[in-house]
Formats: sequence, structure tokens, C-alpha cells
Amino acid sequence: MIEIERKFLVTQDTFKELAHSNTRIVQGFLNTNPERTVRIRIKGNSAFLTIKGISNESGLSRFEWEREITIEEAESLLALCEPGVIDKVRFEVEIGDHLYEVDVFKGANEGLVVAEIELKSEDEFFEKPNWIGEEVTGDIKYYNSQLSKKPYTTWAFD
Amino acid sequence: MIEIERKFLVTQDTFKELAHSNTRIVQGFLNTNPERTVRIRIKGNSAFLTIKGISNESGLSRFEWEREITIEEAESLLALCEPGVIDKVRFEVEIGDHLYEVDVFKGANEGLVVAEIELKSEDEFFEKPNWIGEEVTGDIKYYNSQLSKKPYTTWAFD
Repeated sequence: MIEIERKFLVTQDTFKELAHSNTRIVQGFLNTNPERTVRIRIKGNSAFLTIKGISNESGLSRFEWEREITIEEAESLLALCEPGVIDKVRFEVEIGDHLYEVDVFKGANEGLVVAEIELKSEDEFFEKPNWIGEEVTGDIKYYNSQLSKKPYTTWAFD
Repeated sequence: MIEIERKFLVTQDTFKELAHSNTRIVQGFLNTNPERTVRIRIKGNSAFLTIKGISNESGLSRFEWEREITIEEAESLLALCEPGVIDKVRFEVEIGDHLYEVDVFKGANEGLVVAEIELKSEDEFFEKPNWIGEEVTGDIKYYNSQLSKKPYTTWAFD
């Protein structure tokens, strides 16, 4: 399946008042290569194995395959993962017809807040609330796979 | 789940007369790292996603997690795999109470024939027919993940 997603930095905390849910996510990677990312995720009381390919040329579409697994399986598989587990809280915020998933990172990625929206086509219209900042779609350093290896708090700002 | 397997080189073709089945296997890897191998396999009309960890100290036990997937899913996922697909025919041979799986490699691994037997405990007795040669259990260069990157026909023999 091909996913069309756009990703933005979040500039204000006000999205939290609009959120209808927030869920802890802990995830690790069996491969962080953006051409064949293999992710193990525990999200609340569920767990998933997800495989993603590289983005297409526009940077908006990416192959994604996902299967639910048990928490116990996820825990066994997390033990095999590369060092650098991602820990974050995901807020779900409905804006118009769309769902923004806003990830507030903890641990080594503390300070980073990223919003993602899934679209049905690359040119679909969507509303941008005022807490949405710079677009970072397709920027590999914001991939969770890369954040696990090179976390946000280690980035040098010029 | 932990698997106990022993692996041997095969010295003669006579196992073929004893085999009750043979099946073509095509497989690729989303990760060839022996600490977290992720394999996509099409075996006859079935397909599987398998994740394996590194061997324990004795070299005999290895964490393994497997899930059946559809052939279509396997084909999509094979397209994401690292270069170097493994192509082989697996013969199943029953000897006493045990099953030997004998893999006759093709393509870049032509000439290599390996037999594997699964045991319930590390000290379980099993019969060794006369076509069983040197034991290569735990030798990483015989892992299929490594054969996909560094195939048998490229090995230098002294």
C-alpha cells in the first residue's frame, strides 16, 4: 500500500486543547535504512510490525505494510532492535475532515514536536491551523528511524 | 521462540532418493545483520516473514519469529529487499524421528548443498546418514543472509 503523508514542525502547544486522545508510543527498528525500514511499535495496548520503503520522487508517497502483533511479540522483537528506542506521546487532533497526529518526543528527542497528516491524493486540500510551522515532508532526518540513531538533542543548530 | 538447529554440508546426491518432497524457495532480506535478520520467503505457494536474532554462545539456539503473509505481500516486500535474492530447492528427508531439510542452492550460490535438522534440546540424539559432511552450525558465512551478500561462488578456496 502507498501512503501519502505530509509532515510539519509544530510551533505552539495549543494543539493539546483540541486533541481528542493522547497515547504513549515506544518503538524500535530492526532496520533504520530508509529504503527498507522495519519498525516494532507498542502504542497504548496494541503493537505493530511496520515495513516502509523510500519516498517517491515528490517525497510525499511511501510504501507501507503493517501487521498487528501481540505486546509480548513486540517486547521480544524490541529486544532485537538497533540501539535507540523512540519514546513519544501521540496526540490526535481533528481539523476539518482530516486527522493530525502530533508527536511530542521524549528522551533523546525531547523538544521535537511534529505533526503528520494523511491524504488520499497528493493535491488534496487540507486546513493548516496556526500551530503548524515549517513543512519537513520527505526530510529524512525527521524520519523516526533516523531520530533513533541521531536524536534531535544531538543536532547542531547554526 | 528459540530454535535449536544444526547445519551440515552435504557430500553426496543420494539424499534425493530419500526425499519425500522438494520445493522451490526464493527469499530476500530486509536486514542481513545476523543480530536482527528480517527475511521474506516465498516457498512453493506460501510466503513468510521471519525475524531471527543472533545465536546463543553454543551457536545452536537462535530466536526466531515467523508469520505467514500472502504471495502478493511477499512480492511487494521482496522489491524492498537488499540486492542478492537467494534461490534454492529444499528437499525434505526423514531419517529416523527427524526431518533433514536439504537446500540445493542455485544462481550465485550454485554448488552449495546444506542440510539442517531441528532439535528439541541441544543434547538430543539424531542419526547422521552417510551424505552428511562437516558441521557448519553457527558459522555465519553459511547463514542465508550472508550468502545473499557474499555468495558461495565468490568464496576463495585455499
